[in-house]
Amino acid sequence: MLYRKWGTDKDFVASYTSSNESDREIIEEVKTVMKAHVIELYLSGYIKKDTAKKILQAINSFREYTGNYEDIHEAMEDYIIKLVGEEGGWVGLGRSRNDHVSTALRLKMRDYLVNVFEVLYSLRISILERAEKTTEVIIPVYTHFQPAQPTSLAHYLLYVDEELDSVWDQLFTSLRLVNRSPLGSGAIVGTNVKLNRKREAEMLGFEGLVYNTISATASRLDLISTISSLTLLMLIFSRIAEDLILLSSSFVGIIKLPDSHVSTSSLMPQKRNAVTMEILRTKAGECFGHLSSLVTIYKALPSGYNLDLQELNRHYWECVKHVIPSIYVIKDVLEKMEVTGRFDDKSITATDVAEDLALTGIPYRKAYMEVANKIRAGTFKSEISFKSSIEKKAVIGSPNPELIKTEIELKKENIELKWKNFREYKSQFIDKISELKVIEDDILQ
Amino acid sequence: MLYRKWGTDKDFVASYTSSNESDREIIEEVKTVMKAHVIELYLSGYIKKDTAKKILQAINSFREYTGNYEDIHEAMEDYIIKLVGEEGGWVGLGRSRNDHVSTALRLKMRDYLVNVFEVLYSLRISILERAEKTTEVIIPVYTHFQPAQPTSLAHYLLYVDEELDSVWDQLFTSLRLVNRSPLGSGAIVGTNVKLNRKREAEMLGFEGLVYNTISATASRLDLISTISSLTLLMLIFSRIAEDLILLSSSFVGIIKLPDSHVSTSSLMPQKRNAVTMEILRTKAGECFGHLSSLVTIYKALPSGYNLDLQELNRHYWECVKHVIPSIYVIKDVLEKMEVTGRFDDKSITATDVAEDLALTGIPYRKAYMEVANKIRAGTFKSEISFKSSIEKKAVIGSPNPELIKTEIELKKENIELKWKNFREYKSQFIDKISELKVIEDDILQ
Amino acid sequence: MLYRKWGTDKDFVASYTSSNESDREIIEEVKTVMKAHVIELYLSGYIKKDTAKKILQAINSFREYTGNYEDIHEAMEDYIIKLVGEEGGWVGLGRSRNDHVSTALRLKMRDYLVNVFEVLYSLRISILERAEKTTEVIIPVYTHFQPAQPTSLAHYLLYVDEELDSVWDQLFTSLRLVNRSPLGSGAIVGTNVKLNRKREAEMLGFEGLVYNTISATASRLDLISTISSLTLLMLIFSRIAEDLILLSSSFVGIIKLPDSHVSTSSLMPQKRNAVTMEILRTKAGECFGHLSSLVTIYKALPSGYNLDLQELNRHYWECVKHVIPSIYVIKDVLEKMEVTGRFDDKSITATDVAEDLALTGIPYRKAYMEVANKIRAGTFKSEISFKSSIEKKAVIGSPNPELIKTEIELKKENIELKWKNFREYKSQFIDKISELKVIEDDILQ
Amino acid sequence: MLYRKWGTDKDFVASYTSSNESDREIIEEVKTVMKAHVIELYLSGYIKKDTAKKILQAINSFREYTGNYEDIHEAMEDYIIKLVGEEGGWVGLGRSRNDHVSTALRLKMRDYLVNVFEVLYSLRISILERAEKTTEVIIPVYTHFQPAQPTSLAHYLLYVDEELDSVWDQLFTSLRLVNRSPLGSGAIVGTNVKLNRKREAEMLGFEGLVYNTISATASRLDLISTISSLTLLMLIFSRIAEDLILLSSSFVGIIKLPDSHVSTSSLMPQKRNAVTMEILRTKAGECFGHLSSLVTIYKALPSGYNLDLQELNRHYWECVKHVIPSIYVIKDVLEKMEVTGRFDDKSITATDVAEDLALTGIPYRKAYMEVANKIRAGTFKSEISFKSSIEKKAVIGSPNPELIKTEIELKKENIELKWKNFREYKSQFIDKISELKVIEDDILQ
Repeated sequence: MLYRKWGTDKDFVASYTSSNESDREIIEEVKTVMKAHVIELYLSGYIKKDTAKKILQAINSFREYTGNYEDIHEAMEDYIIKLVGEEGGWVGLGRSRNDHVSTALRLKMRDYLVNVFEVLYSLRISILERAEKTTEVIIPVYTHFQPAQPTSLAHYLLYVDEELDSVWDQLFTSLRLVNRSPLGSGAIVGTNVKLNRKREAEMLGFEGLVYNTISATASRLDLISTISSLTLLMLIFSRIAEDLILLSSSFVGIIKLPDSHVSTSSLMPQKRNAVTMEILRTKAGECFGHLSSLVTIYKALPSGYNLDLQELNRHYWECVKHVIPSIYVIKDVLEKMEVTGRFDDKSITATDVAEDLALTGIPYRKAYMEVANKIRAGTFKSEISFKSSIEKKAVIGSPNPELIKTEIELKKENIELKWKNFREYKSQFIDKISELKVIEDDILQ
Repeated sequence: MLYRKWGTDKDFVASYTSSNESDREIIEEVKTVMKAHVIELYLSGYIKKDTAKKILQAINSFREYTGNYEDIHEAMEDYIIKLVGEEGGWVGLGRSRNDHVSTALRLKMRDYLVNVFEVLYSLRISILERAEKTTEVIIPVYTHFQPAQPTSLAHYLLYVDEELDSVWDQLFTSLRLVNRSPLGSGAIVGTNVKLNRKREAEMLGFEGLVYNTISATASRLDLISTISSLTLLMLIFSRIAEDLILLSSSFVGIIKLPDSHVSTSSLMPQKRNAVTMEILRTKAGECFGHLSSLVTIYKALPSGYNLDLQELNRHYWECVKHVIPSIYVIKDVLEKMEVTGRFDDKSITATDVAEDLALTGIPYRKAYMEVANKIRAGTFKSEISFKSSIEKKAVIGSPNPELIKTEIELKKENIELKWKNFREYKSQFIDKISELKVIEDDILQ
Repeated sequence: MLYRKWGTDKDFVASYTSSNESDREIIEEVKTVMKAHVIELYLSGYIKKDTAKKILQAINSFREYTGNYEDIHEAMEDYIIKLVGEEGGWVGLGRSRNDHVSTALRLKMRDYLVNVFEVLYSLRISILERAEKTTEVIIPVYTHFQPAQPTSLAHYLLYVDEELDSVWDQLFTSLRLVNRSPLGSGAIVGTNVKLNRKREAEMLGFEGLVYNTISATASRLDLISTISSLTLLMLIFSRIAEDLILLSSSFVGIIKLPDSHVSTSSLMPQKRNAVTMEILRTKAGECFGHLSSLVTIYKALPSGYNLDLQELNRHYWECVKHVIPSIYVIKDVLEKMEVTGRFDDKSITATDVAEDLALTGIPYRKAYMEVANKIRAGTFKSEISFKSSIEKKAVIGSPNPELIKTEIELKKENIELKWKNFREYKSQFIDKISELKVIEDDILQ
Repeated sequence: MLYRKWGTDKDFVASYTSSNESDREIIEEVKTVMKAHVIELYLSGYIKKDTAKKILQAINSFREYTGNYEDIHEAMEDYIIKLVGEEGGWVGLGRSRNDHVSTALRLKMRDYLVNVFEVLYSLRISILERAEKTTEVIIPVYTHFQPAQPTSLAHYLLYVDEELDSVWDQLFTSLRLVNRSPLGSGAIVGTNVKLNRKREAEMLGFEGLVYNTISATASRLDLISTISSLTLLMLIFSRIAEDLILLSSSFVGIIKLPDSHVSTSSLMPQKRNAVTMEILRTKAGECFGHLSSLVTIYKALPSGYNLDLQELNRHYWECVKHVIPSIYVIKDVLEKMEVTGRFDDKSITATDVAEDLALTGIPYRKAYMEVANKIRAGTFKSEISFKSSIEKKAVIGSPNPELIKTEIELKKENIELKWKNFREYKSQFIDKISELKVIEDDILQ
């Protein structure tokens, strides 16, 4: 207990509001933010180099904490003062838990998002590489879960990549929202201390500022935006997981999942249950649950910091922890699954027959009705092989193997360009964080 | 690994589908269910008393587990077979993980719900007792957060109790949905083994059966119903928390929260932030997030067990863990908060003035307009004290101190009756579980 | 404009808050509530019979309304005063829009819920009747969408009924929450007018009172509970719809849906898309969307009426409008669908083989492993027909045709008992509403 | 009925799946898409100019429709064939309802989003203009709804703008996701007809293609992304609405809302209820409800078109219809509200006092404790006026009037730059749509 007078030793009340469990996720980030703040106090002339040195040493030696603290900020400040003495109390100048926790959260989120982009990139590369090898591996695709037309595995894989590309941009917008500095905003209106907020932002590698101090201390749009984007990503995977569960069922038998992704039954030994895909299918629900909590908690909160905001953080960690393994799992299954089933229902070339007929000069709807009548009468026949069906496709984006090669090239260029941009973006904050270390080392000498 | 052939040692895949972390919550329940199953196999003549004895001993000695198991069921069966030998393999007869996990979950949920009812009862008693003492403690109530009319703290407290009473019935419906036995349903269609499902249900103290074996193994309506009911409960608390945050703000200054429920600021020492109420305010969002996950995951799942169902369980534990401390916290604050503020805006007796005027024979709308015009002209005056305002109230359910005493009596009778019914309901399953223990002890002798 | 002084003619502001569109749904209910109020004013001696007569005549002649009114309550009161003169202003005595709208909503909800119960009853009867005829119609059931074991259509239908039965109780709890009278509660603390709230409740056929006047005017737990229950109902249907989409796909080919429930493609004439089931599958999402709105809007609202509550109502109508046709549609499809597919994969009798083996005296896990090894080696054979497989099932709730007849009898008794209770419950409010009419007629003579 | 053979005249089934109500929202867009398709068939040599002319004339004359059609696409094609004769059947060549409806939806969404950007721009300009005039209008800001420190109205308004700026980028990402052409993708795998998809995209002013035909016909990520972004926008408004409800309450009395935004009570004439802000406060719940429906419906849908997707569209219209009036309403209130209250609790300068003390050389935490002790002892005094408090603020983003002028300039430049980019982006599709008209006119001559 450092600030609190009205505090209590009644455990159930104190533990109800404590954020300590969640704060353990961000110890390193809180230390980094505190160090940037101390360095800024030194650079702007508020504390002497020697004071800065002592405080930085204390911060560096801070590890786990226990005791009756509201949160990590109180614990760390108390630790510093105990170690450094009264002089350590300078650490409180011009700062608030409100701006510091917001900054630490953004550093943590930035790291997590970098991780998401990295595994997402490796998934997309893996998809495009497998697509190159499967332009002639034929599968039936469906609409309304009714077999519709022949396509290739490559075409399906490129669909997955196109979905991921949409979310990539969305996630990048979220990352840029996250990657802005709230530091120096005090509790809500800033401080009388002349902190150089831009310098603080640079030290932590932020792209810019959350300019207005009310936004800086109390907006969590960045977090909600991020979880929305991750929910979109999981929605994509939920549809892919559903496809693979359906296609690998022995009812359908088109796809064979890798052995490591299936399980059998304690009662029915013949089963090959697509268990990883079932778990993956739930993850959109998992992330959306977190989004629902965020929206419900955030809605109509009075502006400025409220302790309600503390309860948002946990949802962020929880969500990300489901996302990253999910990407690994889908990558593994898309790399290793095999098309094993034979599907020989020629009716899925009916559209080809109707189009061919139309191209002889019969208005399409008439051609269509002729084919439709044969199908309904059970007299439909087709000479068109599935292979020639896909080769007939004439529009870009279709499974035609020639066109699809172009699509793969384009998609490769696209992802490599986005990846380059991402790495450049990332290197900016990696570089800046290194510079912060240099200043710190200089003070610590 | 016991059942799996296609399993893998690739950690990230195996750990992705494992339920071990969640299963640790239900070890005791899984053991209880297994014991009931073994006893049933013995009672129905499939295994000898001696075999039953050995298996029961093994189950009782089962503690924590590690190793490459999909879930606790696989781990426990493997443990039994290792300890007892091949004879231990009888444990698998006529059972599936599907019916066993569903049964264990229901036992766990039943226990949690009993706990919720118990703390809810103590909250309601506490509210009614404080209401008795505060029938003349006056506070202004608002609509649209504009001060509206005078009332008493007792009247407000009885409102809280009435809301809780609505949810009590809802929760009880959920409990009865939970408290039915799926045991003996096998994987989905039952078993060729003549298990006496009613006897199994009785041994575990269930009120009855989930009759149909498909429902028994794969329905989770009971769980979703429970989380819906708990969300309703948290919604009530979110409104109460909001009231107390507003009324205790120094902007308003009507209520003083107990010191243990407020905190101050690291930057602004004058603050008395209503921190427990802010956390409480979020809990509806917390539970609703879990409900959102449940609904999204459950929606359109093919009937029968899918591994997706496993991912529902965690949401149940998480939700309940927020609910119980919340009830303690609101109980503490409602017992200890004080009405400290003076509120002297007589305009909140305007309705009294208009009604008095009408009762002299002027059609109400005309009386109302007269009063309204005075207020708008700034010439409104009222001789009616807040005390006499509440005493004038003439309908049941209003803050009139005489009428409110009747309301308290009624509400007390009501809660005691419901509590009696609850305890009787509970005693049925407590008694049955004791009988199970008697049979077990007999076998173990 | 009747009450408002600060009102404006700026359309976009006025129309933003207006509830007129939604109020048009409850015109009849608002009139009924107003009549009960007028009669109560007469019975309790506040207005003369002649005044009551004039006002009742005016209410009866009120039809559609237009003009610059905030809501129907303002419009109707203005209409009465214009028609009856100043004396009409008595109608405002002892009432508020807050208690009147809450009462009208509950009447409307009660009617809608009655309708839901009626169609639900006819669905359940229809299911049980079809079950009687299909105890030997064999289908494969699945877990994890892998064919698992043979069962009968009757068994599947009884599963649907069991799920509906769970929701029936939940819905009835919601109905009882709805069917309580808030009338006479004024704006928030009641009124100085000695209205007999119990008599008002009886006139409108309510089961009892929302006792406390704060709850009566500003709680909407009844509404949220109802939408939660309807979401549960739609979740059941979403799983059934999914099953029928999968089983009727030409990939699987077990079920043939009635022609009226399938559609074809504008491009691919061979398709038989299960379009009604696809729409039905969405309805859980539809209702859950409304529930999400309700929860998010309601959470942390200050107690007492806020205009936010007005925005809840629309979600109620919208949700119910999806529910009732959905029940008709599922009833039609369950009555008419046919099992047309032959499924001959004997591996789904593997569990039977293992159980038979165990019953010769081999511990089950050992027997299971023997069967499992044969399946994995491709040497598994089974002499067990699907018909004998279901006949072997030995537990209640299983597809064994003998046992299932008992299940049908039990379920029939159960639904008829619940239906009887429901009709008795309903007749109480039908009868009371008739009595209200008698009093009204007496005044109007 | 055009395509359907298995169709039925049973109304409740047909009307259950019909999208006609929703399709009426997109008649013009469906016509535009059909025209682009017909022109492409002509340009790529599949139909003669004369045929194209007749079909275009028919499309132009298509108005409202009735009759037993599944949807607008069937109705329009039937209309064309009836008007043009068998030759009209060419319109079906190389198209599917799947790609056409997706294209029409995107055109409609694009238009709606343009509208959102336009009103959002005018809101932001209005906010910045008012900020310029209110840099010295002092209000107390709060954290935890406890008065915290003095600030200016301008500072608060700039906070609102900063939040809007975050969502602006998010919305623009959604718009770019929307503004891509699915046309020419057929039902799922494209078509054998050599449609030039890039030319089609250009004719409709799309920025590019949804390349892969599976994505093009069956992804709705663009729609879900848009509703997520609009939910973020409404979340911002919910907090502002809450602030204004609180600050304009007579409990607090800082802000006076314009008369047109408040209403009074039918029972309590003294009330000034912040009714527009209460309605605005609900809109996050409204949009989030739609998002919940979208996510729940979309999750785990098999890839390719399913009729479930049709049920998403309604949620889009509904959501946007709440958003646009909300922006008008908040604009009006932020322009016209006045700061009328005097707030004279000097304790909100406590932080200033502590910081001043620290700047004399006392470590901050020590200075803080001195001030804190005085406040708790009731002996705290402050010589600092609210005006000088805000002038003391020394960091960018704070309410210091000098610094805030810079902030306003920056924010003006920022929004004007974004507005310029937006208009350029918009002009591209406006221009292209004009070119389409030119080609059409050429054919129609």
